[in-house]
Amino acid sequence: MSKNTLDNLFAPRSIAIIGASNKKGKVGTVITDNILKLGYKGKVYLVNPSYKILKLKRCYPSLEAINKEVDVAIIAVPAKFVNEVVAKSCHKVKNFVVISAGFSETGEAGTLREKELSKLAQKHNLNILGPNCLGFIVPKLKLNASFAGGMPKAGNIAFISQSGALAVALMDRAKQENISFSSVISVGNKMQLAESELLEHLSKDKQTKVIGMYLEGIKDGEKFIETAKKVSKIKPIVILKAGKTEKSQKAISSHTGALAGSDDIVQIAFEKAGVIRADDLEEFFDLLALISFTNAPKNEKVVVVTNAGGAGVLTTDAFKGKEIVLADLNKKTKEAIKNTLPSEASVENPIDLLGDADENRYDDALELLGKKNIGTLASVLTPQEQTPVEKIAEVIIKSRKNGTSNTVAIFIGGDRVKKSIIELKKNLIPNFSNPDSAVKALNKYHQWNVFRKSKNQSEVSKTNSSRKKEIAKIINKALLEKRGALFFSEAAEVMKKYGITPVDCLEILPNCEISEVGKYPVVLKVDSDKVLHKSDKQALILNIKNAAELKNAVEKLRIDFPQERFIVQPMQDKHAELILGIKRDGIFGPVIVYGLGGIYTEVFKMVNFLIPPMSLGEIEKEIMKSKIGFLFAGVRGQKICDVHEFALIVKGLMEFALENEKVREFDINPLFIYNDGRSSSAVDIKIIL
Amino acid sequence: MSKNTLDNLFAPRSIAIIGASNKKGKVGTVITDNILKLGYKGKVYLVNPSYKILKLKRCYPSLEAINKEVDVAIIAVPAKFVNEVVAKSCHKVKNFVVISAGFSETGEAGTLREKELSKLAQKHNLNILGPNCLGFIVPKLKLNASFAGGMPKAGNIAFISQSGALAVALMDRAKQENISFSSVISVGNKMQLAESELLEHLSKDKQTKVIGMYLEGIKDGEKFIETAKKVSKIKPIVILKAGKTEKSQKAISSHTGALAGSDDIVQIAFEKAGVIRADDLEEFFDLLALISFTNAPKNEKVVVVTNAGGAGVLTTDAFKGKEIVLADLNKKTKEAIKNTLPSEASVENPIDLLGDADENRYDDALELLGKKNIGTLASVLTPQEQTPVEKIAEVIIKSRKNGTSNTVAIFIGGDRVKKSIIELKKNLIPNFSNPDSAVKALNKYHQWNVFRKSKNQSEVSKTNSSRKKEIAKIINKALLEKRGALFFSEAAEVMKKYGITPVDCLEILPNCEISEVGKYPVVLKVDSDKVLHKSDKQALILNIKNAAELKNAVEKLRIDFPQERFIVQPMQDKHAELILGIKRDGIFGPVIVYGLGGIYTEVFKMVNFLIPPMSLGEIEKEIMKSKIGFLFAGVRGQKICDVHEFALIVKGLMEFALENEKVREFDINPLFIYNDGRSSSAVDIKIIL
Repeated sequence: MSKNTLDNLFAPRSIAIIGASNKKGKVGTVITDNILKLGYKGKVYLVNPSYKILKLKRCYPSLEAINKEVDVAIIAVPAKFVNEVVAKSCHKVKNFVVISAGFSETGEAGTLREKELSKLAQKHNLNILGPNCLGFIVPKLKLNASFAGGMPKAGNIAFISQSGALAVALMDRAKQENISFSSVISVGNKMQLAESELLEHLSKDKQTKVIGMYLEGIKDGEKFIETAKKVSKIKPIVILKAGKTEKSQKAISSHTGALAGSDDIVQIAFEKAGVIRADDLEEFFDLLALISFTNAPKNEKVVVVTNAGGAGVLTTDAFKGKEIVLADLNKKTKEAIKNTLPSEASVENPIDLLGDADENRYDDALELLGKKNIGTLASVLTPQEQTPVEKIAEVIIKSRKNGTSNTVAIFIGGDRVKKSIIELKKNLIPNFSNPDSAVKALNKYHQWNVFRKSKNQSEVSKTNSSRKKEIAKIINKALLEKRGALFFSEAAEVMKKYGITPVDCLEILPNCEISEVGKYPVVLKVDSDKVLHKSDKQALILNIKNAAELKNAVEKLRIDFPQERFIVQPMQDKHAELILGIKRDGIFGPVIVYGLGGIYTEVFKMVNFLIPPMSLGEIEKEIMKSKIGFLFAGVRGQKICDVHEFALIVKGLMEFALENEKVREFDINPLFIYNDGRSSSAVDIKIIL
Repeated sequence: MSKNTLDNLFAPRSIAIIGASNKKGKVGTVITDNILKLGYKGKVYLVNPSYKILKLKRCYPSLEAINKEVDVAIIAVPAKFVNEVVAKSCHKVKNFVVISAGFSETGEAGTLREKELSKLAQKHNLNILGPNCLGFIVPKLKLNASFAGGMPKAGNIAFISQSGALAVALMDRAKQENISFSSVISVGNKMQLAESELLEHLSKDKQTKVIGMYLEGIKDGEKFIETAKKVSKIKPIVILKAGKTEKSQKAISSHTGALAGSDDIVQIAFEKAGVIRADDLEEFFDLLALISFTNAPKNEKVVVVTNAGGAGVLTTDAFKGKEIVLADLNKKTKEAIKNTLPSEASVENPIDLLGDADENRYDDALELLGKKNIGTLASVLTPQEQTPVEKIAEVIIKSRKNGTSNTVAIFIGGDRVKKSIIELKKNLIPNFSNPDSAVKALNKYHQWNVFRKSKNQSEVSKTNSSRKKEIAKIINKALLEKRGALFFSEAAEVMKKYGITPVDCLEILPNCEISEVGKYPVVLKVDSDKVLHKSDKQALILNIKNAAELKNAVEKLRIDFPQERFIVQPMQDKHAELILGIKRDGIFGPVIVYGLGGIYTEVFKMVNFLIPPMSLGEIEKEIMKSKIGFLFAGVRGQKICDVHEFALIVKGLMEFALENEKVREFDINPLFIYNDGRSSSAVDIKIIL
């Protein structure tokens, strides 16, 4: 069956409204009015068995009764009738928008109903938006196929919202901000059309320059990353993701698992996919306006001109910790600007045009700077008594038209700057009421651009099926014995297949003799799926110096652990102690967690996350940027550890994660690494089934 | 000489304007018009030798020529004439506002001029605001003694600005936000009247409920902390502090020094003084509006009602990491609310009134909640098609009048909510366009209230003068020998006087025999003011096991350090390694820096700052809250270290810092602490002169 694209859904030539009505306050009435009265040029068919004529138009008793082609059917009838409508017409109509609530959001009966609808969609290759959604709006077609009022301005922002109410609020606010839309789509329960499907569609939509999303959940994490990564190479995706607060996590027995909160993983997934994440609603607006109005800054350099020293200092502060920077101007440029200004003016960036600056001072400075290789020109203004605010706005508008830098404004004030801000926005110059917001948004736009230009290194890891089989054998044996975890010796065998070297180990089974140990000192540990945090449960004895001590130690541990197997390992010194492992995320699948180990692991939270698959080069790059990068970069004359060696271990772990889906959690804790040429060694390995 | 209060300056019965004019665009003209035309009821005298009559009033040739009492003289003549004007009239007039620029902000001549003016002020007990300032405005008196235009609304916010331009921008913005002022004061160069003097004055001003400040620098840090701390107990101080970005610091030779950035110290000073710090300009507005409109929340509990689930989730997210919390409602309350709502509504906090909520649903919920012991009631709204925005605003206003909780609104949207937001503000209900901003501001207001109610424990440390003398002797000896630092043995002697136990130590002088060492293993170190980072310069040898090895080690170090003295110390194991020391801050004086030591000190930046003096109890409390609090609180079954012992060491260090001002920098690095009953020991002590 050929793929049914979304073009017909979002640019329909004909629409049928099932549940069209003229009763006041009904959703069907609002939608009918929105479609009929706001200028949509396509064919519209009304469906409602209670009417013959409605809104002066013929009204059909059913969708099947319409003897013409219907691109989209909008369904606004009670939930219990929805599936029937779809089932009866799905041979003819391929695109549905289900406005009706009463599906998976309302409990068991609704969930069943949604499953049935989903099956219909699959079987008949349908596109279904919703259910439980507001509908969608395409301003360029004057098509408001939703029950939100009004028609936003046609523009280049596609907005996808998981909350209908927020979509309405955003459109209302957008008018004030002069930002405008290619489409507004409410996804409701995301039964079939979720973020990935819409991203895919919008990436090809020529009207859309930037995709903004409000999301509460993500439907299929792996598909999302793959799609978003591809789309981010073409156009920016800005996401406001709600649900940062952790719900109580299920009992997690591995160290690694407990270290990764679900929002940390969302964050890393967004980074991997090049998604621009908005921290809050204000920043979401700021980013949409900035990206809608301007191109990504061609480089990281920003020059600020200001008529208020204080605002200049605040702007400088805002650059702290950012990737965009205040450009260093060369002597020649500074002199040229200095010549146009009174002697007290400062030509260090931010350039202080002084409190009495008129439009000519801004003009001269912007004119000169516009010819330089600067990413962004930011004009800061406070409305002093003598400040010709409107004229300065005009000058900034002119400079935008002539220059190649991005232009943003930071006009700080109220009534005195209001009119000019509107004028600026009309001319596609975003204004920020606050230097911090401006710099934050510009920085994120720049970061996206760096992502866009970066080479795509990811490779799909090939599954090694013979390896997979061998490991399945080991795992199945443990499962048959009803163990929740592998023994160390088994885990060690598994890890060796992925190039990870475990520490030497001798096993002592219950009621068995102790074999001879070659070299002391050693450590004695309980090796059991019932003892996962050994130091918590006093299930290990360190620094055993000879056979007699070992015998004593075994007897001592036998008291508390009569039926468990023990292992003997050499005592190891260490340079640094790491922890790494796998967490299975409900949304994004396996996530590699790595960081600093030892008693402070939880205290320092020096952990990092990676989502497979990744190439070795990418892994190395991420490790160097990570919180433990210092181990491989050298600090205060310390010798460095081998990042390549560690990256290979991480890569091995990724392959393991992808090949062995039955493994629920996984910890190597600790992994000792060295900076003197010795190979790293995995001291304890926990594979939890 | 009795203290000249600022009451006459800011509530004058009579004003003289030196440099009054009617030439267009002149500062003197603007000020004259502002004072004469905006409604000020006091006497006004114009001074300018060029006129007899000006603005239909008599014009005096000089200030002395006025034969009446003058409470304040506003000076707007060229800088070179200013001091003369003051000198000639200072027997009669005690309060001056020097608008004129051309003082310390302009180089050497100006700096001299300012010094001279400052001397005049001291000698004659004058109050001088400025120079180089905008002036001040007291809306209640209809007095605009500045060259900013207009008259802000009279209210309860006192605003002090180090930037005239930002003051103007803020007043312009304030009109939009419906926030209003008890006074607006531009401090210019802060020659004499700086933050502390104005805080002191405004703390007693009955019109002022909250003091807002924009500061670029702080004049006298120690005085500022003392004053602000006192004032914060009475009314909140909100500060927007510019200059977060570090200027390149002077070469700093101690570890401790390099760890403390100047903004870190500002932060800790503000915390100590109970100051509310605004992170940026938007938050500054948010905080001023919130505090101006509402009382501090009576407790940390917040209940949110919303007509949009998505906005509710965003609001929940905003509480992450905050001290205010979403209140747990009891079953009875939930049931009572549930009874007023449709069955699909959620009565978990945030309470979801559903998208079609009308004013009655808000009313019922707010009415019920208003009777509970809740700190803050936040009403979230998005303007759905059927939402009666104005009526809901009315209901919220009513609820504020009847209830005892604080009331805030989060109306998200544009034109559809605009009118209602104005109405809310008129009725002293702050509106935030963003849940994050609301929660952030509420949290800071709550934190201030906790500070206000906390008991003041600080005690002034008494100087131990005999101890001080003994230490001066040791220091002077080192200075005589032109050493930049004390030897370890000297530093150890000093530290013992403050109750800090150094590690045992044996000295080996150049060209001397090695004395017998009692117990091995030991460490050999170079002890010199030229070698401050021993591990960087390979100036130490660890783990020396016997006399022969020690001899070898001494010979080896002698090659690189022929003229230095060495010390021998026992090898010590450790539980945790700390670093602590003193940094002298240019503004706030001595600062105690403490944190985690070892090779990762710089990497982890696990450092904390304290500003003396503090009581032992306060120190303990701060340590427990600090980044190394975990050492004293226990993590994962670890035994804990003794916080009292460590607090005594910090207290000793504070006393040392206050008694020995000649010591420039100071490091104990490392200090080993234990969790097995052993006393902590200072392994290396660096006292830099």
